[in-house]
Amino acid sequence: MAQASIGNSEFDRDTAVVLREPGVYDTDLPAGWTVFNAVNGGFLLAAVGRALGDALPHPDPVTITAHYLTASVPGPAVIRTEVVRSGRTMSTGQASLLQHDEDGNEVERMRIVAGYADLGALPDDVRTTAKPPAIPPYEHCLGSDAAPDGAPPMADAAPIMERLDLRLDPATAGWAVGAPSGLGEMRAWFGLADGRDSDPPALLLAVDALPPTAFDLGLSGWTPTLELTVHLRCRPAPGPLRVSVTTRNLAGGFLEEDAEVWDSDDRLVAQSRQLARAPRGA
Amino acid sequence: MAQASIGNSEFDRDTAVVLREPGVYDTDLPAGWTVFNAVNGGFLLAAVGRALGDALPHPDPVTITAHYLTASVPGPAVIRTEVVRSGRTMSTGQASLLQHDEDGNEVERMRIVAGYADLGALPDDVRTTAKPPAIPPYEHCLGSDAAPDGAPPMADAAPIMERLDLRLDPATAGWAVGAPSGLGEMRAWFGLADGRDSDPPALLLAVDALPPTAFDLGLSGWTPTLELTVHLRCRPAPGPLRVSVTTRNLAGGFLEEDAEVWDSDDRLVAQSRQLARAPRGA
Repeated sequence: MAQASIGNSEFDRDTAVVLREPGVYDTDLPAGWTVFNAVNGGFLLAAVGRALGDALPHPDPVTITAHYLTASVPGPAVIRTEVVRSGRTMSTGQASLLQHDEDGNEVERMRIVAGYADLGALPDDVRTTAKPPAIPPYEHCLGSDAAPDGAPPMADAAPIMERLDLRLDPATAGWAVGAPSGLGEMRAWFGLADGRDSDPPALLLAVDALPPTAFDLGLSGWTPTLELTVHLRCRPAPGPLRVSVTTRNLAGGFLEEDAEVWDSDDRLVAQSRQLARAPRGA
Repeated sequence: MAQASIGNSEFDRDTAVVLREPGVYDTDLPAGWTVFNAVNGGFLLAAVGRALGDALPHPDPVTITAHYLTASVPGPAVIRTEVVRSGRTMSTGQASLLQHDEDGNEVERMRIVAGYADLGALPDDVRTTAKPPAIPPYEHCLGSDAAPDGAPPMADAAPIMERLDLRLDPATAGWAVGAPSGLGEMRAWFGLADGRDSDPPALLLAVDALPPTAFDLGLSGWTPTLELTVHLRCRPAPGPLRVSVTTRNLAGGFLEEDAEVWDSDDRLVAQSRQLARAPRGA
Protein backbone atom coordinates (compact mmCIF):
# COMPACT_ATOMS: atom_id res chain seq x y z
CA MET A 1 0.00 0.00 0.00
CA ALA A 2 1.41 3.38 -0.98
CA GLN A 3 1.97 5.84 1.88
CA ALA A 4 -1.03 8.16 2.05
CA SER A 5 -0.77 11.87 2.79
CA ILE A 6 -3.01 14.48 4.40
CA GLY A 7 -5.68 15.38 1.87
CA ASN A 8 -5.14 12.20 -0.15
CA SER A 9 -6.12 9.23 1.98
CA GLU A 10 -9.03 7.00 2.86
CA PHE A 11 -9.67 9.03 6.04
CA ASP A 12 -9.92 12.23 3.98
CA ARG A 13 -12.24 10.68 1.41
CA ASP A 14 -14.41 9.04 4.07
CA THR A 15 -14.83 12.23 6.17
CA ALA A 16 -15.51 14.39 3.11
CA VAL A 17 -18.58 16.62 3.22
CA VAL A 18 -20.28 18.20 0.21
CA LEU A 19 -21.96 21.60 0.41
CA ARG A 20 -25.61 21.23 -0.55
CA GLU A 21 -26.75 24.76 0.31
CA PRO A 22 -25.32 27.41 2.65
CA GLY A 23 -24.66 25.74 6.00
CA VAL A 24 -25.91 22.30 4.94
CA TYR A 25 -23.57 19.45 4.01
CA ASP A 26 -24.09 15.93 2.70
CA THR A 27 -21.85 13.08 3.68
CA ASP A 28 -21.85 9.32 3.37
CA LEU A 29 -20.89 7.44 6.51
CA PRO A 30 -18.81 4.45 5.43
CA ALA A 31 -19.04 0.96 6.94
CA GLY A 32 -15.27 0.88 7.31
CA TRP A 33 -15.18 2.97 10.51
CA THR A 34 -17.74 1.04 12.55
CA VAL A 35 -17.72 -1.03 15.72
CA PHE A 36 -20.65 -3.49 15.84
CA ASN A 37 -22.22 -1.55 12.93
CA ALA A 38 -22.23 1.80 14.80
CA VAL A 39 -19.97 4.45 13.27
CA ASN A 40 -17.16 5.40 15.67
CA GLY A 41 -17.84 8.57 17.65
CA GLY A 42 -14.45 10.13 16.97
CA PHE A 43 -14.82 9.51 13.25
CA LEU A 44 -18.23 11.22 13.31
CA LEU A 45 -16.72 14.17 15.13
CA ALA A 46 -14.03 14.44 12.45
CA ALA A 47 -16.64 14.53 9.68
CA VAL A 48 -18.84 17.10 11.43
CA GLY A 49 -15.70 19.02 12.37
CA ARG A 50 -14.81 19.33 8.69
CA ALA A 51 -18.27 20.74 7.92
CA LEU A 52 -17.92 23.29 10.72
CA GLY A 53 -14.43 24.19 9.52
CA ASP A 54 -15.97 25.01 6.15
CA ALA A 55 -18.97 26.89 7.55
CA LEU A 56 -17.00 29.00 10.05
CA PRO A 57 -14.41 31.69 9.30
CA HIS A 58 -11.71 29.78 11.23
CA PRO A 59 -10.40 26.35 10.19
CA ASP A 60 -9.62 24.39 13.36
CA PRO A 61 -11.66 23.18 16.34
CA VAL A 62 -10.13 24.42 19.60
CA THR A 63 -12.92 23.11 21.80
CA ILE A 64 -15.61 20.83 20.41
CA THR A 65 -18.39 19.05 22.29
CA ALA A 66 -20.63 16.34 20.88
CA HIS A 67 -23.73 14.88 22.48
CA TYR A 68 -24.46 11.45 21.01
CA LEU A 69 -28.22 11.02 20.72
CA THR A 70 -28.72 7.85 18.68
CA ALA A 71 -26.27 5.41 17.05
CA SER A 72 -25.08 6.46 13.58
CA VAL A 73 -25.15 3.76 10.93
CA PRO A 74 -23.38 3.48 7.57
CA GLY A 75 -25.12 5.43 4.82
CA PRO A 76 -26.09 8.95 3.84
CA ALA A 77 -26.21 11.68 6.46
CA VAL A 78 -26.83 15.41 6.51
CA ILE A 79 -24.95 17.96 8.61
CA ARG A 80 -26.79 21.20 9.37
CA THR A 81 -24.55 23.95 10.71
CA GLU A 82 -25.19 27.32 12.34
CA VAL A 83 -22.70 30.13 12.83
CA VAL A 84 -23.35 31.16 16.43
CA ARG A 85 -20.73 33.88 16.69
CA SER A 86 -17.91 35.19 14.51
CA GLY A 87 -15.03 36.92 16.28
CA ARG A 88 -11.65 38.07 15.07
CA THR A 89 -9.59 35.21 16.45
CA MET A 90 -12.33 32.70 17.30
CA SER A 91 -15.76 31.71 16.07
CA THR A 92 -18.44 29.48 17.54
CA GLY A 93 -20.60 27.08 15.60
CA GLN A 94 -23.24 24.48 16.13
CA ALA A 95 -24.08 21.42 14.07
CA SER A 96 -26.48 18.52 13.93
CA LEU A 97 -25.83 15.22 12.20
CA LEU A 98 -29.01 13.64 10.86
CA GLN A 99 -29.96 10.40 9.14
CA HIS A 100 -33.22 8.86 7.98
CA ASP A 101 -34.52 5.79 9.78
CA GLU A 102 -36.20 2.80 8.05
CA ASP A 103 -39.53 4.64 8.05
CA GLY A 104 -38.02 7.66 6.32
CA ASN A 105 -38.14 9.88 9.40
CA GLU A 106 -35.23 12.22 9.99
CA VAL A 107 -33.41 11.26 13.23
CA GLU A 108 -30.77 13.37 14.89
CA ARG A 109 -27.60 11.38 15.63
CA MET A 110 -25.51 14.00 17.37
CA ARG A 111 -25.54 17.66 18.39
CA ILE A 112 -22.26 19.58 18.39
CA VAL A 113 -21.15 22.99 19.68
CA ALA A 114 -17.60 24.12 19.00
CA GLY A 115 -15.18 27.04 19.17
CA TYR A 116 -12.89 27.37 16.15
CA ALA A 117 -9.64 29.25 15.62
CA ASP A 118 -6.51 28.95 13.48
CA LEU A 119 -4.23 26.59 15.40
CA GLY A 120 -1.32 27.71 13.22
CA ALA A 121 -1.76 31.33 14.31
CA LEU A 122 -1.66 30.78 18.08
CA PRO A 123 1.21 32.05 20.23
CA ASP A 124 3.76 29.33 20.92
CA ASP A 125 4.40 29.93 24.63
CA VAL A 126 4.02 26.76 26.69
CA ARG A 127 3.97 26.30 30.47
CA THR A 128 3.24 22.77 31.39
CA THR A 129 3.56 20.28 34.20
CA ALA A 130 2.14 17.50 31.99
CA LYS A 131 4.43 14.61 31.11
CA PRO A 132 4.13 12.29 28.10
CA PRO A 133 2.68 8.89 28.99
CA ALA A 134 5.12 6.19 30.01
CA ILE A 135 4.64 3.83 27.09
CA PRO A 136 7.13 1.33 25.69
CA PRO A 137 8.60 1.90 22.23
CA TYR A 138 6.26 1.29 19.29
CA GLU A 139 7.93 -2.03 18.39
CA HIS A 140 7.32 -3.38 21.91
CA CYS A 141 3.59 -2.58 21.84
CA LEU A 142 0.85 -4.88 20.60
CA GLY A 143 -0.99 -4.52 17.29
CA SER A 144 -4.31 -6.19 16.53
CA ASP A 145 -2.28 -9.00 14.90
CA ALA A 146 -1.16 -9.88 18.45
CA ALA A 147 -4.67 -11.02 19.50
CA PRO A 148 -4.48 -14.31 21.37
CA ASP A 149 -4.85 -17.56 19.43
CA GLY A 150 -8.46 -18.55 18.94
CA ALA A 151 -9.81 -15.05 19.48
CA PRO A 152 -12.27 -14.02 16.78
CA PRO A 153 -10.69 -11.69 14.22
CA MET A 154 -11.29 -8.21 15.62
CA ALA A 155 -11.87 -6.77 12.16
CA ASP A 156 -15.11 -8.73 11.85
CA ALA A 157 -16.80 -6.81 14.67
CA ALA A 158 -14.73 -3.63 14.32
CA PRO A 159 -13.70 -2.86 10.74
CA ILE A 160 -12.22 0.41 12.06
CA MET A 161 -9.33 -1.64 13.45
CA GLU A 162 -8.14 -2.33 9.89
CA ARG A 163 -7.85 1.40 9.25
CA LEU A 164 -5.89 2.22 12.38
CA ASP A 165 -2.34 1.40 13.31
CA LEU A 166 -2.95 0.99 17.05
CA ARG A 167 -0.21 -0.51 19.21
CA LEU A 168 -1.35 -1.13 22.78
CA ASP A 169 0.96 -0.82 25.75
CA PRO A 170 1.22 -4.43 27.02
CA ALA A 171 0.58 -3.10 30.55
CA THR A 172 -2.94 -2.08 29.48
CA ALA A 173 -3.65 -5.07 27.21
CA GLY A 174 -4.12 -7.75 29.90
CA TRP A 175 -7.91 -7.66 29.48
CA ALA A 176 -7.48 -9.35 26.07
CA VAL A 177 -6.21 -12.46 27.86
CA GLY A 178 -8.55 -12.23 30.85
CA ALA A 179 -6.16 -10.32 33.11
CA PRO A 180 -7.28 -6.67 33.28
CA SER A 181 -5.18 -4.44 35.53
CA GLY A 182 -8.24 -3.00 37.27
CA LEU A 183 -6.79 0.52 37.00
CA GLY A 184 -8.98 1.74 34.14
CA GLU A 185 -6.10 2.73 31.87
CA MET A 186 -5.43 2.33 28.15
CA ARG A 187 -2.30 3.52 26.37
CA ALA A 188 -1.35 3.13 22.74
CA TRP A 189 0.60 4.39 19.79
CA PHE A 190 -1.89 5.75 17.26
CA GLY A 191 -1.57 6.18 13.53
CA LEU A 192 -3.64 5.63 10.42
CA ALA A 193 -2.96 2.28 8.78
CA ASP A 194 -2.16 3.84 5.42
CA GLY A 195 0.57 5.99 6.95
CA ARG A 196 -1.28 9.31 6.60
CA ASP A 197 0.03 11.72 9.24
CA SER A 198 -2.32 13.23 11.78
CA ASP A 199 -3.96 16.64 11.53
CA PRO A 200 -6.71 18.19 13.67
CA PRO A 201 -9.49 15.95 12.26
CA ALA A 202 -7.33 12.89 12.96
CA LEU A 203 -6.88 14.08 16.55
CA LEU A 204 -10.67 13.99 16.93
CA LEU A 205 -10.49 10.36 15.83
CA ALA A 206 -7.51 9.54 18.05
CA VAL A 207 -9.19 10.49 21.34
CA ASP A 208 -11.96 7.90 20.80
CA ALA A 209 -10.04 5.13 19.02
CA LEU A 210 -8.63 2.97 21.83
CA PRO A 211 -10.50 0.03 23.38
CA PRO A 212 -12.77 1.17 26.26
CA THR A 213 -10.97 1.67 29.58
CA ALA A 214 -13.87 -0.33 31.06
CA PHE A 215 -12.15 -3.45 29.65
CA ASP A 216 -9.17 -2.69 31.90
CA LEU A 217 -11.59 -2.38 34.84
CA GLY A 218 -12.68 -5.96 34.13
CA LEU A 219 -15.98 -4.97 32.54
CA SER A 220 -17.13 -6.07 29.13
CA GLY A 221 -19.85 -4.95 26.80
CA TRP A 222 -20.99 -1.81 25.09
CA THR A 223 -19.80 1.54 26.55
CA PRO A 224 -21.80 4.12 24.59
CA THR A 225 -20.47 7.67 24.64
CA LEU A 226 -23.03 10.20 25.84
CA GLU A 227 -20.86 13.29 25.52
CA LEU A 228 -17.34 13.95 24.27
CA THR A 229 -15.42 17.21 24.55
CA VAL A 230 -12.05 17.64 22.85
CA HIS A 231 -9.61 20.52 23.30
CA LEU A 232 -7.07 20.83 20.48
CA ARG A 233 -3.99 22.73 21.56
CA CYS A 234 -1.75 22.65 18.48
CA ARG A 235 -1.28 20.96 15.11
CA PRO A 236 0.52 17.66 15.61
CA ALA A 237 3.98 17.06 14.20
CA PRO A 238 4.32 14.21 11.66
CA GLY A 239 4.75 10.69 13.00
CA PRO A 240 2.85 8.42 15.33
CA LEU A 241 0.93 9.83 18.31
CA ARG A 242 0.86 8.53 21.86
CA VAL A 243 -2.61 8.34 23.39
CA SER A 244 -3.30 7.78 27.06
CA VAL A 245 -6.85 7.24 28.34
CA THR A 246 -7.75 7.06 32.02
CA THR A 247 -10.95 6.39 33.95
CA ARG A 248 -10.81 7.41 37.59
CA ASN A 249 -14.43 7.24 38.60
CA LEU A 250 -17.20 4.82 37.69
CA ALA A 251 -20.30 5.88 39.61
CA GLY A 252 -24.02 6.10 39.09
CA GLY A 253 -23.78 3.88 36.02
CA PHE A 254 -21.50 6.34 34.21
CA LEU A 255 -17.77 6.64 33.78
CA GLU A 256 -15.50 9.34 32.44
CA GLU A 257 -12.67 8.67 29.98
CA ASP A 258 -9.91 11.29 29.95
CA ALA A 259 -7.63 11.15 26.93
CA GLU A 260 -4.37 12.90 26.23
CA VAL A 261 -2.69 12.90 22.85
CA TRP A 262 1.04 13.59 22.53
CA ASP A 263 2.89 14.16 19.27
CA SER A 264 6.39 13.14 18.20
CA ASP A 265 7.73 16.51 19.42
CA ASP A 266 6.53 15.62 22.97
CA ARG A 267 3.78 18.21 22.87
CA LEU A 268 0.38 17.65 24.46
CA VAL A 269 -1.66 18.31 21.31
CA ALA A 270 -5.14 17.31 22.50
CA GLN A 271 -7.04 16.66 25.72
CA SER A 272 -10.47 15.13 25.85
CA ARG A 273 -13.03 13.89 28.31
CA GLN A 274 -16.07 11.81 27.58
CA LEU A 275 -18.94 10.63 29.74
CA ALA A 276 -20.00 7.11 28.83
CA ARG A 277 -22.55 4.68 30.12
CA ALA A 278 -20.80 1.93 32.06
CA PRO A 279 -21.21 -1.54 30.58
CA ARG A 280 -23.46 -3.86 32.52
CA GLY A 281 -21.28 -6.94 31.99
CA ALA A 282 -19.07 -7.91 34.93
CA MET B 1 -27.89 35.76 59.59
CA ALA B 2 -30.33 32.84 59.79
CA GLN B 3 -29.14 29.59 58.23
CA ALA B 4 -30.58 29.36 54.72
CA SER B 5 -31.85 26.13 53.21
CA ILE B 6 -32.14 24.69 49.72
CA GLY B 7 -35.11 26.39 48.06
CA ASN B 8 -35.07 29.30 50.49
CA SER B 9 -31.85 31.23 50.02
CA GLU B 10 -30.33 34.10 48.10
CA PHE B 11 -28.80 31.64 45.60
CA ASP B 12 -32.23 30.14 44.91
CA ARG B 13 -33.88 33.54 44.50
CA ASP B 14 -31.07 34.86 42.31
CA THR B 15 -31.01 31.85 39.96
CA ALA B 16 -34.81 31.76 39.68
CA VAL B 17 -36.29 31.61 36.19
CA VAL B 18 -39.86 32.48 35.25
CA LEU B 19 -41.67 30.68 32.45
CA ARG B 20 -42.76 33.24 29.84
CA GLU B 21 -44.05 30.83 27.21
CA PRO B 22 -43.26 27.15 26.50
CA GLY B 23 -39.48 26.77 26.48
CA VAL B 24 -38.74 30.46 27.15
CA TYR B 25 -37.73 31.76 30.58
CA ASP B 26 -37.07 35.21 32.00
CA THR B 27 -34.46 35.83 34.63
CA ASP B 28 -32.77 38.82 36.20
CA LEU B 29 -29.02 38.51 36.58
CA PRO B 30 -28.10 40.12 39.90
CA ALA B 31 -25.03 42.31 40.50
CA GLY B 32 -24.20 40.25 43.59
CA TRP B 33 -22.59 37.38 41.66
CA THR B 34 -20.17 39.38 39.51
CA VAL B 35 -16.42 39.72 39.16
CA PHE B 36 -15.43 43.06 37.59
CA ASN B 37 -19.09 43.55 36.58
CA ALA B 38 -19.26 40.28 34.60
CA VAL B 39 -21.64 37.69 36.02
CA ASN B 40 -19.75 34.56 37.14
CA GLY B 41 -19.80 31.73 34.59
CA GLY B 42 -20.77 29.04 37.10
CA PHE B 43 -23.63 31.14 38.41
CA LEU B 44 -24.90 31.61 34.84
CA LEU B 45 -24.71 27.87 34.28
CA ALA B 46 -26.76 27.31 37.45
CA ALA B 47 -29.49 29.68 36.24
CA VAL B 48 -29.64 28.19 32.73
CA GLY B 49 -29.44 24.74 34.30
CA ARG B 50 -32.58 25.48 36.26
CA ALA B 51 -34.42 26.51 33.10
CA LEU B 52 -33.35 23.29 31.36
CA GLY B 53 -34.37 21.26 34.41
CA ASP B 54 -37.83 22.75 34.03
CA ALA B 55 -38.03 22.33 30.26
CA LEU B 56 -36.76 18.73 30.16
CA PRO B 57 -38.47 15.64 31.58
CA HIS B 58 -35.49 14.93 33.88
CA PRO B 59 -34.41 17.24 36.71
CA ASP B 60 -30.61 17.10 36.95
CA PRO B 61 -27.74 17.91 34.60
CA VAL B 62 -25.44 14.90 34.20
CA THR B 63 -23.25 16.49 31.54
CA ILE B 64 -23.58 20.16 30.67
CA THR B 65 -21.43 22.25 28.33
CA ALA B 66 -21.51 26.03 28.02
CA HIS B 67 -19.80 28.12 25.39
CA TYR B 68 -19.34 31.68 26.64
CA LEU B 69 -19.84 34.07 23.75
CA THR B 70 -19.98 37.54 25.32
CA ALA B 71 -19.77 38.75 28.93
CA SER B 72 -23.08 38.68 30.81
CA VAL B 73 -23.92 41.82 32.78
CA PRO B 74 -26.38 42.39 35.64
CA GLY B 75 -29.96 42.92 34.44
CA PRO B 76 -32.73 41.13 32.61
CA ALA B 77 -31.97 38.09 30.46
CA VAL B 78 -33.93 35.55 28.47
CA ILE B 79 -33.25 31.82 28.29
CA ARG B 80 -34.53 30.02 25.21
CA THR B 81 -34.55 26.25 25.51
CA GLU B 82 -35.02 23.39 23.07
CA VAL B 83 -35.75 19.76 23.89
CA VAL B 84 -33.34 17.91 21.58
CA ARG B 85 -34.21 14.38 22.65
CA SER B 86 -36.36 12.77 25.34
CA GLY B 87 -35.42 9.29 26.44
CA ARG B 88 -36.58 7.12 29.29
CA THR B 89 -33.65 7.67 31.64
CA MET B 90 -31.99 10.66 29.97
CA SER B 91 -32.95 13.68 27.93
CA THR B 92 -30.89 16.19 25.99
CA GLY B 93 -31.54 19.91 25.83
CA GLN B 94 -30.08 23.05 24.41
CA ALA B 95 -30.34 26.61 25.66
CA SER B 96 -29.26 30.13 24.79
CA LEU B 97 -28.90 32.96 27.29
CA LEU B 98 -29.63 36.34 25.71
CA GLN B 99 -29.51 39.97 26.81
CA HIS B 100 -30.10 43.28 25.09
CA ASP B 101 -27.15 45.60 24.51
CA GLU B 102 -27.27 49.40 24.91
CA ASP B 103 -28.66 49.75 21.39
CA GLY B 104 -31.49 47.35 22.11
CA ASN B 105 -30.07 44.54 20.02
CA GLU B 106 -30.41 41.02 21.33
CA VAL B 107 -26.96 39.53 22.04
CA GLU B 108 -26.30 35.89 22.84
CA ARG B 109 -24.24 35.45 26.01
CA MET B 110 -23.88 31.71 26.11
CA ARG B 111 -24.92 28.53 24.30
CA ILE B 112 -25.50 25.37 26.30
CA VAL B 113 -26.04 21.70 25.44
CA ALA B 114 -26.75 19.27 28.25
CA GLY B 115 -27.80 15.73 29.09
CA TYR B 116 -30.25 15.45 32.01
CA ALA B 117 -31.25 12.54 34.23
CA ASP B 118 -32.49 11.97 37.77
CA LEU B 119 -29.35 11.81 39.91
CA GLY B 120 -31.40 10.30 42.72
CA ALA B 121 -32.42 7.35 40.53
CA LEU B 122 -28.95 6.25 39.44
CA PRO B 123 -27.42 2.96 40.56
CA ASP B 124 -25.08 3.43 43.52
CA ASP B 125 -22.19 1.19 42.47
CA VAL B 126 -18.85 2.99 42.63
CA ARG B 127 -15.42 1.89 41.36
CA THR B 128 -12.91 4.62 41.76
CA THR B 129 -9.19 5.24 41.97
CA ALA B 130 -9.78 8.95 42.67
CA LYS B 131 -8.73 10.30 46.05
CA PRO B 132 -10.10 13.38 47.82
CA PRO B 133 -7.77 16.39 47.58
CA ALA B 134 -5.18 16.76 50.33
CA ILE B 135 -6.48 19.95 51.90
CA PRO B 136 -6.03 21.08 55.51
CA PRO B 137 -9.06 21.24 57.81
CA TYR B 138 -11.51 24.08 57.15
CA GLU B 139 -10.33 26.07 60.19
CA HIS B 140 -6.73 26.04 58.90
CA CYS B 141 -7.70 27.42 55.48
CA LEU B 142 -7.90 31.06 54.49
CA GLY B 143 -11.13 33.04 54.04
CA SER B 144 -11.32 36.33 52.18
CA ASP B 145 -10.96 38.05 55.58
CA ALA B 146 -7.39 36.74 55.57
CA ALA B 147 -6.35 39.05 52.69
CA PRO B 148 -3.02 40.71 53.44
CA ASP B 149 -2.99 44.14 55.13
CA GLY B 150 -3.36 46.97 52.66
CA ALA B 151 -4.89 44.78 49.93
CA PRO B 152 -8.04 46.32 48.46
CA PRO B 153 -11.21 44.71 49.81
CA MET B 154 -11.91 41.84 47.40
CA ALA B 155 -15.67 42.41 47.64
CA ASP B 156 -15.33 45.73 45.78
CA ALA B 157 -14.18 44.03 42.58
CA ALA B 158 -15.86 40.69 43.22
CA PRO B 159 -19.18 40.94 45.09
CA ILE B 160 -19.55 37.18 44.58
CA MET B 161 -16.94 36.69 47.31
CA GLU B 162 -19.45 37.98 49.90
CA ARG B 163 -21.88 35.24 48.93
CA LEU B 164 -19.40 32.38 49.10
CA ASP B 165 -17.73 30.78 52.06
CA LEU B 166 -14.45 29.96 50.32
CA ARG B 167 -11.50 28.83 52.42
CA LEU B 168 -8.31 28.51 50.38
CA ASP B 169 -5.66 25.91 51.11
CA PRO B 170 -2.67 28.04 52.28
CA ALA B 171 -0.47 25.97 49.92
CA THR B 172 -2.37 27.46 46.95
CA ALA B 173 -2.81 30.98 48.35
CA GLY B 174 0.79 32.21 48.01
CA TRP B 175 -0.09 34.28 44.92
CA ALA B 176 -2.04 36.68 47.21
CA VAL B 177 1.27 37.69 48.82
CA GLY B 178 3.37 37.55 45.66
CA ALA B 179 4.58 33.98 46.10
CA PRO B 180 2.68 31.71 43.67
CA SER B 181 3.70 28.05 43.74
CA GLY B 182 4.02 27.88 39.95
CA LEU B 183 2.15 24.56 39.91
CA GLY B 184 -1.20 25.88 38.64
CA GLU B 185 -3.25 24.52 41.51
CA MET B 186 -6.10 25.92 43.61
CA ARG B 187 -7.83 24.06 46.44
CA ALA B 188 -10.55 25.29 48.74
CA TRP B 189 -13.45 24.46 50.99
CA PHE B 190 -16.63 25.71 49.29
CA GLY B 191 -19.95 26.69 50.77
CA LEU B 192 -22.55 29.38 50.38
CA ALA B 193 -22.09 32.21 52.89
CA ASP B 194 -25.64 31.91 54.19
CA GLY B 195 -25.12 28.26 55.08
CA ARG B 196 -27.37 26.84 52.38
CA ASP B 197 -26.25 23.31 51.55
CA SER B 198 -25.20 22.38 48.04
CA ASP B 199 -27.38 20.74 45.43
CA PRO B 200 -26.75 20.15 41.71
CA PRO B 201 -27.13 23.87 40.75
CA ALA B 202 -24.67 24.79 43.52
CA LEU B 203 -22.20 22.26 42.09
CA LEU B 204 -22.31 24.16 38.80
CA LEU B 205 -21.33 27.25 40.76
CA ALA B 206 -18.64 25.46 42.77
CA VAL B 207 -16.59 24.32 39.77
CA ASP B 208 -16.04 27.94 38.64
CA ALA B 209 -15.86 29.73 42.00
CA LEU B 210 -12.19 29.55 42.98
CA PRO B 211 -9.59 32.15 41.98
CA PRO B 212 -8.05 31.35 38.58
CA THR B 213 -5.26 28.75 38.66
CA ALA B 214 -3.35 31.19 36.44
CA PHE B 215 -2.69 33.22 39.64
CA ASP B 216 -0.82 30.21 41.02
CA LEU B 217 1.19 30.09 37.78
CA GLY B 218 2.31 33.66 38.52
CA LEU B 219 0.03 35.24 35.93
CA SER B 220 -2.42 38.01 36.67
CA GLY B 221 -5.33 39.49 34.80
CA TRP B 222 -8.54 38.33 33.23
CA THR B 223 -8.90 34.62 32.39
CA PRO B 224 -12.14 34.47 30.42
CA THR B 225 -13.78 31.06 30.13
CA LEU B 226 -14.42 30.00 26.55
CA GLU B 227 -16.02 26.66 27.29
CA LEU B 228 -16.95 24.80 30.47
CA THR B 229 -18.18 21.22 30.72
CA VAL B 230 -19.41 19.79 34.02
CA HIS B 231 -20.23 16.17 34.79
CA LEU B 232 -22.43 15.70 37.86
CA ARG B 233 -22.09 12.24 39.33
CA CYS B 234 -24.36 12.33 42.38
CA ARG B 235 -26.28 14.67 44.67
CA PRO B 236 -23.89 16.05 47.30
CA ALA B 237 -24.32 15.25 50.99
CA PRO B 238 -24.94 18.23 53.31
CA GLY B 239 -21.94 20.16 54.54
CA PRO B 240 -19.02 21.98 52.95
CA LEU B 241 -17.50 20.74 49.70
CA ARG B 242 -13.83 20.38 48.82
CA VAL B 243 -12.89 21.74 45.41
CA SER B 244 -9.58 21.09 43.69
CA VAL B 245 -8.67 22.85 40.42
CA THR B 246 -5.58 22.02 38.38
CA THR B 247 -4.02 23.44 35.24
CA ARG B 248 -1.46 21.17 33.62
CA ASN B 249 -0.99 22.79 30.25
CA LEU B 250 -0.88 26.43 29.18
CA ALA B 251 -0.21 26.49 25.45
CA GLY B 252 -1.24 28.48 22.42
CA GLY B 253 -2.65 31.24 24.61
CA PHE B 254 -5.15 28.88 26.25
CA LEU B 255 -5.19 26.87 29.43
CA GLU B 256 -7.43 24.15 30.80
CA GLU B 257 -8.79 24.15 34.35
CA ASP B 258 -9.83 20.73 35.67
CA ALA B 259 -12.01 20.84 38.77
CA GLU B 260 -13.09 18.07 41.10
CA VAL B 261 -15.73 18.53 43.77
CA TRP B 262 -15.90 16.18 46.76
CA ASP B 263 -18.69 16.06 49.31
CA SER B 264 -18.60 15.40 53.06
CA ASP B 265 -19.16 11.67 52.42
CA ASP B 266 -15.85 11.60 50.44
CA ARG B 267 -17.66 11.10 47.16
CA LEU B 268 -16.45 12.68 43.91
CA VAL B 269 -19.71 14.47 43.09
CA ALA B 270 -18.63 16.58 40.11
CA GLN B 271 -15.82 16.80 37.58
CA SER B 272 -15.37 19.71 35.21
CA ARG B 273 -12.97 21.01 32.64
CA GLN B 274 -12.89 24.46 31.14
CA LEU B 275 -10.83 26.02 28.39
CA ALA B 276 -9.90 29.61 29.20
CA ARG B 277 -7.87 32.28 27.52
CA ALA B 278 -4.57 32.70 29.35
CA PRO B 279 -4.10 36.13 30.91
CA ARG B 280 -1.51 38.31 29.21
CA GLY B 281 -0.08 39.72 32.46
CA ALA B 282 3.19 38.17 33.63
